[in-house]
Amino acid sequence: MPQISKKGQQMPSSPIRKLVPYAEAAEKRGTTVYYLNIGQPDIKTPQVALDAVKVHSLETIAYTRSEGSEDYRKKIAGYYKKNQIDVTHSDIIVTTGGSEALMFAFGSVMDEGDEIIIPEPFYANYNGFSTASGVKVVPVISKIEDNFALPPIEVFEKLITPKTRAILICNPGNPTGYLYTKEEIMKLAAIVKQHDLFLIADEVYREFVYDDVKHFSVLQVPGLEEHAIVIDSVSKRYSMCGARIGYLVSKNKAFINTALKFAQARLSPPTLAQIASEAALDTPQQYFDEVKAEYKKRRDTLMRELEQIEGVKVAKPNGAFYCVVELPVKNADDFAQWLLEKFSFNNETLMVAPAAGFYSTPGVGLNQIRIAYVLLEQSLVKAVKILKEALKVYKD
Amino acid sequence: MPQISKKGQQMPSSPIRKLVPYAEAAEKRGTTVYYLNIGQPDIKTPQVALDAVKVHSLETIAYTRSEGSEDYRKKIAGYYKKNQIDVTHSDIIVTTGGSEALMFAFGSVMDEGDEIIIPEPFYANYNGFSTASGVKVVPVISKIEDNFALPPIEVFEKLITPKTRAILICNPGNPTGYLYTKEEIMKLAAIVKQHDLFLIADEVYREFVYDDVKHFSVLQVPGLEEHAIVIDSVSKRYSMCGARIGYLVSKNKAFINTALKFAQARLSPPTLAQIASEAALDTPQQYFDEVKAEYKKRRDTLMRELEQIEGVKVAKPNGAFYCVVELPVKNADDFAQWLLEKFSFNNETLMVAPAAGFYSTPGVGLNQIRIAYVLLEQSLVKAVKILKEALKVYKD
Ligand SMILES: Cc1ncc(COP(=O)(O)O)c(C=O)c1O
Ligand SMILES: Cc1ncc(COP(=O)(O)O)c(C=O)c1O
Repeated sequence: MPQISKKGQQMPSSPIRKLVPYAEAAEKRGTTVYYLNIGQPDIKTPQVALDAVKVHSLETIAYTRSEGSEDYRKKIAGYYKKNQIDVTHSDIIVTTGGSEALMFAFGSVMDEGDEIIIPEPFYANYNGFSTASGVKVVPVISKIEDNFALPPIEVFEKLITPKTRAILICNPGNPTGYLYTKEEIMKLAAIVKQHDLFLIADEVYREFVYDDVKHFSVLQVPGLEEHAIVIDSVSKRYSMCGARIGYLVSKNKAFINTALKFAQARLSPPTLAQIASEAALDTPQQYFDEVKAEYKKRRDTLMRELEQIEGVKVAKPNGAFYCVVELPVKNADDFAQWLLEKFSFNNETLMVAPAAGFYSTPGVGLNQIRIAYVLLEQSLVKAVKILKEALKVYKD
Repeated sequence: MPQISKKGQQMPSSPIRKLVPYAEAAEKRGTTVYYLNIGQPDIKTPQVALDAVKVHSLETIAYTRSEGSEDYRKKIAGYYKKNQIDVTHSDIIVTTGGSEALMFAFGSVMDEGDEIIIPEPFYANYNGFSTASGVKVVPVISKIEDNFALPPIEVFEKLITPKTRAILICNPGNPTGYLYTKEEIMKLAAIVKQHDLFLIADEVYREFVYDDVKHFSVLQVPGLEEHAIVIDSVSKRYSMCGARIGYLVSKNKAFINTALKFAQARLSPPTLAQIASEAALDTPQQYFDEVKAEYKKRRDTLMRELEQIEGVKVAKPNGAFYCVVELPVKNADDFAQWLLEKFSFNNETLMVAPAAGFYSTPGVGLNQIRIAYVLLEQSLVKAVKILKEALKVYKD
């Protein structure tokens, strides 16, 4: 038998993958499952985007330029200008989702054995992209007690070695929902400048910010031009995850030219999706106002309900549509499986994402789960009720 | 300034990229440029595929399963069955173009420093994917005098080291147009079995076969199940390069499960493109008959015209829509630039791809170019006429 690569063997599986058969079995038994584990919003895609592909006049679905069509990139630059971020189309590469933007960024700034510092818990697929790139993730634990705020900058400082090439943050965070303040971003900016590192900011949830706080982008820091790389995506912004369109944005020319070589090797981002995504930029403001109001309402409801369960701790999210919840259980992984395999309340149960998959340090976050509020308010209320009942009977 | 990765610095640029500004300048001067350098067919996408996205009823463009939607994979399995290839949907992963299928295959079977043997000249982006994966390409020169047939199997044998993990072939070949015979495939099958290697066959041009020869797939070799990996794509088959849909096909479960982990990290292949590509499987046979007749006619015309130029040597292609042409010049790279920069005939000129970019051995193929017959017959005739006139005046 020919051998699978070591890298392939080390590639992590999705943290919820092993729960899927239990959820399927529960549904087969006739039990309703509330899926609190997913990142696929239930929100509708803007009508302008859906319509754009319906009226396409293509005779040949051809490759676009590897960096994305110029018209589209100009419109994206316009979007950033409206958001007080001063970039031009030549600072932008259109990618196949934020996922590919992350892969290109990792490939362009790191070689095998290099290190990237990431505050944890973090988006689980950062582990996958790191393994695929042969890069070592150096985690910095952020704490539920602090709402997952930026850990003291001295902790980062201590972890920097000659192999460190970048710091990666997710802002607002998946799974934490935490929005970094301007002050926190400035601290990170200072440290990457001092140590000649890249600061990669995954800002795919930039529009999902609640309360009266404002998103501050790494691209807004004066003097950080050569260091700042933004990962962006249409997936969540316009609820069009399946389009597979994202962007890499940076004013560092050497970086953009390098990422372009990775982009050229794979020829082109998807053409139909670029048509839909370009149209999505014309989505009326009302759509976003409504979507944000909806998520805020869900978050508030979810927080209120969760806080009523004894022994449960929640970090209040300011952004994105996730929150991390600490449960009075030893092992949330076992608990999640038990919920699907053994438990039901009025013939309903739920699926949650065990948070351990969002940590790179072994043994941390074992009693935490991530909840995505991508369900209707009344379903969230029911789901939390189920969680409450489950915790009454569950034995570690 | 933060550092670009070594890998990023080594990533090759597209071999024709540096010619693009010269072509643009020529057009600005009012000179017509015949583009013989591209892999984007001028053929129309089947109407069923174009229509499918026009009538979509999606309200949310959601992620599909990471391995592609099950319905679609079942239909793909049906396509292979019709082509005497016995696979099921669980042997198939839908990827973002054949490009991503190649990346996943490289990542799943090779680690940094491992070696892959590839007959050259080969599709230039194999170099890019190898560099991105930290893999070393070990080329085996195939010769224009032999029509680029498989080099003697002993040459492969000699190049196998403990680091060799796979042999990669492109069948039919880009840029050679050569279709491997069943006997050649059997020789490769024997050698990969003997040395426990993977045999990766890029069969994206499998349908483009002329004359009375038949395509023989590595998936048709009995007993090769654990070794054979096929890269496939809708890009050329249905002239829908911009869809970005390809497939990985293998009966090796460990391989498919590993590739799936890479697929999960990037979440999903494009949803709209899967709708179009699934519909494309219903394209009437007449479409393919017409397209093949058109390409065959173009190939015959191109061969006939090229053979009339003194000092020009062509390898007659049986498949794909490319051919490699040896010119009576020292450096085809300089010649290609000169064509765009300095030459015109009746205010027309052409752009060709210098073949050196398709070789990994330095200094080989310097006097060769690749011509893609993706233009109408009359344009091909004109283009060859221009080439003939150009060779009369060109001085090395
Ligand atoms: C933080 C974060 N970054 C990146 C992505 C990648 O998304 P996509 O590739 O769909 O743009 C996701 C998706 O869930 C995410 O949560
Ligand atoms: C031999 C070969 N393999 C793979 C590809 C990749 O094509 P795609 O990613 O569009 O499927 C191409 C495109 O030209 C090709 O010529």
